[in-house]
Amino acid sequence: MRLMIIIGIDPGTRITGYGIIEHHSHVTKAIDFGCIRPPLKATSSERYKIIFEAIETLLDLYAPQALAVEGQFVHKNALSAMKLGMARAMAILAAELRNIPIFEYAPKKAKKAVVGTGSASKYQVQKMIQTLLSLEEIPTPDDAADALALALCHSHLLRLTHV
Amino acid sequence: MRLMIIIGIDPGTRITGYGIIEHHSHVTKAIDFGCIRPPLKATSSERYKIIFEAIETLLDLYAPQALAVEGQFVHKNALSAMKLGMARAMAILAAELRNIPIFEYAPKKAKKAVVGTGSASKYQVQKMIQTLLSLEEIPTPDDAADALALALCHSHLLRLTHV
Repeated sequence: MRLMIIIGIDPGTRITGYGIIEHHSHVTKAIDFGCIRPPLKATSSERYKIIFEAIETLLDLYAPQALAVEGQFVHKNALSAMKLGMARAMAILAAELRNIPIFEYAPKKAKKAVVGTGSASKYQVQKMIQTLLSLEEIPTPDDAADALALALCHSHLLRLTHV
Repeated sequence: MRLMIIIGIDPGTRITGYGIIEHHSHVTKAIDFGCIRPPLKATSSERYKIIFEAIETLLDLYAPQALAVEGQFVHKNALSAMKLGMARAMAILAAELRNIPIFEYAPKKAKKAVVGTGSASKYQVQKMIQTLLSLEEIPTPDDAADALALALCHSHLLRLTHV
């Protein structure tokens, strides 16, 4: 089985989590994770650029074969939906410009793939990610753990990672 | 007064209108207008790319000093809000990456600047744009006219075009 690199992106209105996993010879490990947190004083257009360029940097650095992103779900609050949609749009555009296939998963589906239940708490997700990826500590912030969960969800559906 | 070029963008879920005006020596004219209409069969990520690259091409071709875009307004339907937000995000990112200042106007404000009333019909906007820019025919589609109205609204606020 050749090397497979997957990036997960958890877009948020303030913080966008990312997590990159690598699968090779039946072993899945995290190669990077963290979050993009534009300064609070940045204008909305500056935020767009910061998120887009940060994701471009990650894609160019790790050259993932797939991007897993939280699917478009209908948010109760239309303004929050637009803000979330913005960060999500930056991730999708950056991947599409590089012909990286994009896969969307509902947050519940990612939780179910990793923890076994769609209603898992943030801490449960973090603990399970720590175990699955043999991390020394639980991955923080939770946005990064959620991004790793999206990447693992995709890996799981490809039957690479057995969770 | 030096030459001033303004691009207006009217983002839509299916059609994104654009209009470029040039102001020089007290004369404002349209130098280009039309619409970006990704194929209906395109995936949503392909649509993002098509809209982004089309706007990049317009910005690089006409080198506008300002981009006027429909402001973020709270849509009743969250899904439509996200789709609209996507096209809007592509315009804002393309401008921000080129350090082109971005100005947001509510649709009503653009109509008021051009026609004198925020409740003008699409046809009234098209007719007034035709008159103000001395066009031989009314600008179509209405998305293009709305984009020209956004550009004229910005020009009006700069006291360049007296409408």
